[in-house]
Amino acid sequence: MKKIAIDAMGGDNAPKAIVEGVNQAIETFSDIEIQLYGDQSKIDAYLVQSDRVSVIHTDEKIHSDDEPAKAIRRKKQASMVLAAKAVKEGQAEAILSAGNTGALLAAGLFVVGRIKGVDRPGLLSTIPTTNGKGFDMLDLGANAENTAAHLHQYAILGSFYAKNVRGIAKPRVGLLNNGTEATKGDSLRKETYDLLAADDSLTFVGNVEARDLMSGVADVVVADGFTGNAVLKSMEGTAMSIMGQLKQAIKSGGLKAKIGALLLKDSLYEMKNSLDYSSAGGAVLFGLRAPVVKSHGSSDAKAIFSTIKQVRTMLETNVVGQLVDEFAKEAENND
Amino acid sequence: MKKIAIDAMGGDNAPKAIVEGVNQAIETFSDIEIQLYGDQSKIDAYLVQSDRVSVIHTDEKIHSDDEPAKAIRRKKQASMVLAAKAVKEGQAEAILSAGNTGALLAAGLFVVGRIKGVDRPGLLSTIPTTNGKGFDMLDLGANAENTAAHLHQYAILGSFYAKNVRGIAKPRVGLLNNGTEATKGDSLRKETYDLLAADDSLTFVGNVEARDLMSGVADVVVADGFTGNAVLKSMEGTAMSIMGQLKQAIKSGGLKAKIGALLLKDSLYEMKNSLDYSSAGGAVLFGLRAPVVKSHGSSDAKAIFSTIKQVRTMLETNVVGQLVDEFAKEAENND
Repeated sequence: MKKIAIDAMGGDNAPKAIVEGVNQAIETFSDIEIQLYGDQSKIDAYLVQSDRVSVIHTDEKIHSDDEPAKAIRRKKQASMVLAAKAVKEGQAEAILSAGNTGALLAAGLFVVGRIKGVDRPGLLSTIPTTNGKGFDMLDLGANAENTAAHLHQYAILGSFYAKNVRGIAKPRVGLLNNGTEATKGDSLRKETYDLLAADDSLTFVGNVEARDLMSGVADVVVADGFTGNAVLKSMEGTAMSIMGQLKQAIKSGGLKAKIGALLLKDSLYEMKNSLDYSSAGGAVLFGLRAPVVKSHGSSDAKAIFSTIKQVRTMLETNVVGQLVDEFAKEAENND
Repeated sequence: MKKIAIDAMGGDNAPKAIVEGVNQAIETFSDIEIQLYGDQSKIDAYLVQSDRVSVIHTDEKIHSDDEPAKAIRRKKQASMVLAAKAVKEGQAEAILSAGNTGALLAAGLFVVGRIKGVDRPGLLSTIPTTNGKGFDMLDLGANAENTAAHLHQYAILGSFYAKNVRGIAKPRVGLLNNGTEATKGDSLRKETYDLLAADDSLTFVGNVEARDLMSGVADVVVADGFTGNAVLKSMEGTAMSIMGQLKQAIKSGGLKAKIGALLLKDSLYEMKNSLDYSSAGGAVLFGLRAPVVKSHGSSDAKAIFSTIKQVRTMLETNVVGQLVDEFAKEAENND
């Protein structure tokens, strides 16, 4: 039985979307047990009772505008903090929240804790590509500054994730850079390039450019947290703006355009789905002693279900346990 | 009379697109004179004779895969190098090329030369926004590494450009960062934030996120060359991928979708135009002693015309001369 601790009070649609996603997951997967942390009466309003779901009541919660580190320290009874403690103390094996991202990162780092040997856990997401396969990118902003050693660890972390969670036998690792030639980039990129090229455990395909990410140029893309964050937000912002413009173009195009859009509806809907950043699951703060997964703040029940499914796969493949062994082995080799 | 030196041999459609763009510009603007550098017979095949166009023949040219700095040093008779020399020696006031970007940057730096006081000229482009106004961003990749002092200079350079070339009285300057709060980012961003906030000559609106760029959150966006390059390429890549997916969705959607697309054609065309990175003109290597402007490699005659128009505006407003005075003044104040 896989035990997942879920913060029922995080996100724009909590607790309704969270609890409904849980209901769906409990019905679909017979090998999971869920602990819901939050306001019992509000949770009960949506919960389908099951002996595999327990509710741990608390009145306190972390708000989206709370200062992350402070909130984790001071709100000891917050639903997110209790869920993280359950993981730390072994009552649960993973935590999921759609709440304050910074607070979840802090809870992950300070309550759940890092894998020995991983210096700076990175935020990883599977980002859609036009071929439908997606790619995993990290760090997406857990850190504002990274060294080449961190980026090397991200390549290892990302490869384990792609292999285990997405079933890619030999994940192609690319280094995000401002050109594809080996000599491109700043000192951080050049140093990282050498580390990745020298690591035989990786399938390193060299530098990749942001322009080619959506074409599926690599299965794992490694970036420092600052650039990774900027690139992810550029992609999201551009996708949203273009979809908005498309809507506007249809709206201002008169009757002809409206009929055209009606006829195109199914195709446009399919396209919108394939660009849907939430159906690929949540963002993982990867490199911690247990899966710590952030679902988008605007998650609906379907997105929560996808994220639970993702957490279940992480537990089933024991990707975190494998990482613990891998980094222990590396530490030994370096002795 | 404004004298513009143009590399007739650079870009995918040279010299045809270049010469046709020149023909159109000469007809439209009576106050420009153009010097075309390249293969005389190939140029003459498209050129409409005018006493305001001269052709300077040369057999040599820089290829798109030539190593930039080396090409500039060794190919002394290349069309791009001759055009840059014409600017250096005062026969022309600006240079335009659709050829090898790196080589043009090198020619700009080493032949045309920097404005005294500008440490690292930055690559600036006007990028489309959904409100049709666009924003100017720099550095887009002329430098792989930048300091806070460079970024401060980009804020000044970008403001002068937006004011003079785009007619924005008080350009709002934003610092690209991984959050909008003043304390966000790495040490480079924090240091830059303080410099921009302390400079009264700027209309600094604080940190801006990549997600909001296309919504027109600022008129000038300042970034280090590595991040700026990654963000621009993410935006371009995402826009291209989505437009490609839209095409695919229509194609695979059967007859109904095809009729729909036909009815939507005008609206889609308008949308595609508003996203057109080339109609906003070329990328300026800004901070040099004369306008050095790169038109996209795939430029057609229309794009070349737009870029000539942009160069003409830069000459008309004497934006470079103003910058020379501004940086001389700053140097004096620092003495």
